[in-house]
Amino acid sequence: MTSIATRLIPTWLRQYQLAALPTDVIAGLVVGVLVIPQSLGYAVLAGLPPVYGLYAAIVPVIVYAWLGSSNVQAVGPVAITAIMTASSLLPYAEQGTEQYALMASLLALMVGSLLWIAGRLKLGWIMQFISRGVSAGFVSGAAVLIFISQLKYLTDIPIAGSSLIGYLSTMQLYARQLHPLTLLIGVIAFALLVANRYGSKWVWRTWLSSSSAKWAERLFPLILLGIAILLSMALHWDARGVATIGNIPQGLPRFTLPHIPDIQEALKLLPTAGLMALIIFVSSSSVASTYARLRGEKFDANRELTGLGLANLSGGFFQSFAVAGGFSRTAINVDSGAKTPLASLMTVLVMIAALIAFNSALAPLPYALLGATIMASIIGLIDIATLKSAWQRDRLDGASFIAAFVGVLIFGLNTGLVIGLMVSFASLIWQSSQPHVAIVGQLAGTGHFRNINRHDVVTFHNLLMLRIDESLFFGNSESVHRRILNALQQYPEAHELILIMAAVNHIDLTAQEMLSTLNQELALQNKHLHFSFIKGPVMDVIEHTPLIAELSGQVYLSTMDAVNALKQI
Amino acid sequence: MTSIATRLIPTWLRQYQLAALPTDVIAGLVVGVLVIPQSLGYAVLAGLPPVYGLYAAIVPVIVYAWLGSSNVQAVGPVAITAIMTASSLLPYAEQGTEQYALMASLLALMVGSLLWIAGRLKLGWIMQFISRGVSAGFVSGAAVLIFISQLKYLTDIPIAGSSLIGYLSTMQLYARQLHPLTLLIGVIAFALLVANRYGSKWVWRTWLSSSSAKWAERLFPLILLGIAILLSMALHWDARGVATIGNIPQGLPRFTLPHIPDIQEALKLLPTAGLMALIIFVSSSSVASTYARLRGEKFDANRELTGLGLANLSGGFFQSFAVAGGFSRTAINVDSGAKTPLASLMTVLVMIAALIAFNSALAPLPYALLGATIMASIIGLIDIATLKSAWQRDRLDGASFIAAFVGVLIFGLNTGLVIGLMVSFASLIWQSSQPHVAIVGQLAGTGHFRNINRHDVVTFHNLLMLRIDESLFFGNSESVHRRILNALQQYPEAHELILIMAAVNHIDLTAQEMLSTLNQELALQNKHLHFSFIKGPVMDVIEHTPLIAELSGQVYLSTMDAVNALKQI
Repeated sequence: MTSIATRLIPTWLRQYQLAALPTDVIAGLVVGVLVIPQSLGYAVLAGLPPVYGLYAAIVPVIVYAWLGSSNVQAVGPVAITAIMTASSLLPYAEQGTEQYALMASLLALMVGSLLWIAGRLKLGWIMQFISRGVSAGFVSGAAVLIFISQLKYLTDIPIAGSSLIGYLSTMQLYARQLHPLTLLIGVIAFALLVANRYGSKWVWRTWLSSSSAKWAERLFPLILLGIAILLSMALHWDARGVATIGNIPQGLPRFTLPHIPDIQEALKLLPTAGLMALIIFVSSSSVASTYARLRGEKFDANRELTGLGLANLSGGFFQSFAVAGGFSRTAINVDSGAKTPLASLMTVLVMIAALIAFNSALAPLPYALLGATIMASIIGLIDIATLKSAWQRDRLDGASFIAAFVGVLIFGLNTGLVIGLMVSFASLIWQSSQPHVAIVGQLAGTGHFRNINRHDVVTFHNLLMLRIDESLFFGNSESVHRRILNALQQYPEAHELILIMAAVNHIDLTAQEMLSTLNQELALQNKHLHFSFIKGPVMDVIEHTPLIAELSGQVYLSTMDAVNALKQI
Repeated sequence: MTSIATRLIPTWLRQYQLAALPTDVIAGLVVGVLVIPQSLGYAVLAGLPPVYGLYAAIVPVIVYAWLGSSNVQAVGPVAITAIMTASSLLPYAEQGTEQYALMASLLALMVGSLLWIAGRLKLGWIMQFISRGVSAGFVSGAAVLIFISQLKYLTDIPIAGSSLIGYLSTMQLYARQLHPLTLLIGVIAFALLVANRYGSKWVWRTWLSSSSAKWAERLFPLILLGIAILLSMALHWDARGVATIGNIPQGLPRFTLPHIPDIQEALKLLPTAGLMALIIFVSSSSVASTYARLRGEKFDANRELTGLGLANLSGGFFQSFAVAGGFSRTAINVDSGAKTPLASLMTVLVMIAALIAFNSALAPLPYALLGATIMASIIGLIDIATLKSAWQRDRLDGASFIAAFVGVLIFGLNTGLVIGLMVSFASLIWQSSQPHVAIVGQLAGTGHFRNINRHDVVTFHNLLMLRIDESLFFGNSESVHRRILNALQQYPEAHELILIMAAVNHIDLTAQEMLSTLNQELALQNKHLHFSFIKGPVMDVIEHTPLIAELSGQVYLSTMDAVNALKQI
């Protein structure tokens, strides 16, 4: 008997072992403190006031801890969902307005609903929809866009748009508005963060042990943030024209009913929400399944869909924008010793503390520092290594990478992703568009039939036997049709065509219509179409269709039966 | 030696047989006269003045006659390209302006360039990209949109938008502006045209022979057009507030250099142009290849791409909008006896005559009649029969039909088409996402290895042998990975894993990375990964990659070799 309590309390909590408590608490606090600068920055990247980054790390995180598939994945605002939010909302609302924040939550709610529905429909296999090349190309293109978009906080130039050309053209317009002090702060912060990240081998490891160096590297952005706040207060950067984030409103995110502006606009957001849901699912699953394998746990894609779905859905009611599992925050969580989702709940406590007690402390922080933080962390997402290996190891996937990457830069995020997907599907279809179709003959005295080009076989002048070596679908039915017609031209005397279907596992509508057309064409020439060895599942599909009802010939169980019935000697 | 003349003059013209001349001339004239009402109407549907329909039937038709792949296909303005033009240009220019007409030609030029480039790259196989369900669903959805969009000419309500909801919301706004006489003309014309088309069995065949009835049916729209012009003159419809097409400017289309408004807008049109090129190619190829088969000719998809490409490209310089091969005009052409593209050149003469001599005669024609003509002819494109058969014969293709159809109605043409394509690819991936992975053992005393569940085979406690029965790609590598890990859990004692790769024909980057990850995971557990029977083309791909370089085990030529080297008894 499952009591309501049992159903409401997640397994990890019911089976919680107190031994895990200290490390869970420490890990959660560490993640919470370390991701504050990022969270503020991603909200800004999404076109929202910084405080929304903290909001997005509260309700969705609690819901994911309760219902998610992974014990250690840390969800929250991430770079890709932030920039997708900004580019999706560009046509509908102006950044910084109340209306915009409501639309961002509506988008999270739509994304969450789609993910949840996908989970209920058990569409976990959709994860396999995006090839390595497409996802790496998309993320790299998005990273370049993010990098450039952040330049506005270093230069004070209002860069806007949804593609590289949009950015570059606005940059040109305002190029004389540079604010020297802001630029100086941004450039120094960026240089220090990059040195910390990519030079940590030389910088920290000369003084520290390997594991201390790792923590020094991780803590450095937070220390820099503290220094920047102190400097900003001491030197009155605000008064000197440096944009600072200003007072963060005190208090927790409020419950807000979704605001649907007009049904047509909401519908137009839906395809965008679909693409965001796909990206959120694919990237979060990749994090969650990696750590599940490392920890010897099972990864359940459908539960991940449900967890992410309800996290975003509920977030949409509490001023959150779309969230996903983050690779870096999950890595910190695991390295700090997290064992269960309790760590994530600790992270939430840190966010709540920041919102209630430290909100005014953050006011002097310059936007330039947030921009530099994002720019330094985003460089790692530009994945030249995957492009290189794709190009060496699988040209077609390399082409998908380039299509997604260039597509994102030129046409923006959504169109770029769709272009990348199209190229990856096109290459898939191209690979199976030319299946092997062999003319076969009988191995004398046996019931075996083999390719006439490779074996010494018996043929019959009135019979043409073709073996089709692939499932038939829209991607190859036209070329199979052409091959069959060519073979018939080669053997004009053959009036009985036998298609050996032993290797055909599926047959779709396009292929069925192709075979129907073939049947009619043969009938006009007074020839007959026969099948042999149709597999059970294929026969189930075509049994009651016109293809079989109007077939000019017969369906035979084996090729031997067909030959015995039809051969003329 | 190929002289320049030989290269410039197409084969059909060099080998022209005078015997074909009479029927070619007659067919061309018949098609020309019959398609005038449609051509005017499609231009209006595309958002252009009616005369552009005649322009679009001149230069592209000449170029296609010269370079196209089909001897009998009649190209020209068609319903789908017209509505795609209108919906693509909606955000960029206002219908009826000079700017709009220039953008429409620019779009034709872009579509033509893409088709031509695809032809040079020999991408003819792309035709197989769209399944029967997706194309039928897309065309049906477009037909519904076209039908509703034409209501504006019957009601005088300015319906605009790019999706059903857009149409319905503008209709609602203006619902009181009905013009009774216009509505009466439109409804009567529509009723007569529908009766003519779908009632011809009862109407014409009671008096006429079957072939005369066919011609009566085809001529009827033209006769109705003539009657409408006469009535309009006699009853001064113009003065009574019925919108008429007015004077058609005299003269041929002019040479116009493409007008590129701004590089960002032109780039935004490019993905739309890509989708239009795909649709034009797929629908024209379907017409051309059907007639090529009926006439015993070969269909060359790459030449069709080049021909369509240059037809649209050159049309873009002569005030044309995008054209494609049309099913109904090709059928009339063939039925009237056309044998060569000379017939199409005759069609062009008719258009030129209409532009020079009869331009003022068309002035009194009411728009309502053009709207009714299009509405009556578009009904046939709503393809419920295909949906039915798809649903009965291939659920997944039925789902693609519905996705494309509903997508077009709700989100507009481009997004709807992309959604339909995504669903059809998703179903493809779903089908191959769960490949067969069998645990095998040795048939005692032989070198054969078979499924342990089906055969009585010998196994070795330290060996796990898995046969993968499908090519590995992004669509199934995650599930193959999971199956392999499950099998390893089932046999914890097996420290040597042998993957039998005999059925793996391709391996993409995603799958290579999956196997690399597997190799590392096994190494952590002190287990080794081995391969046997890697096919030549697969080995060529992975030979110099980290997968082989860092492999913890060995690559064996045969499974027997692997077993002999590794077994512990």
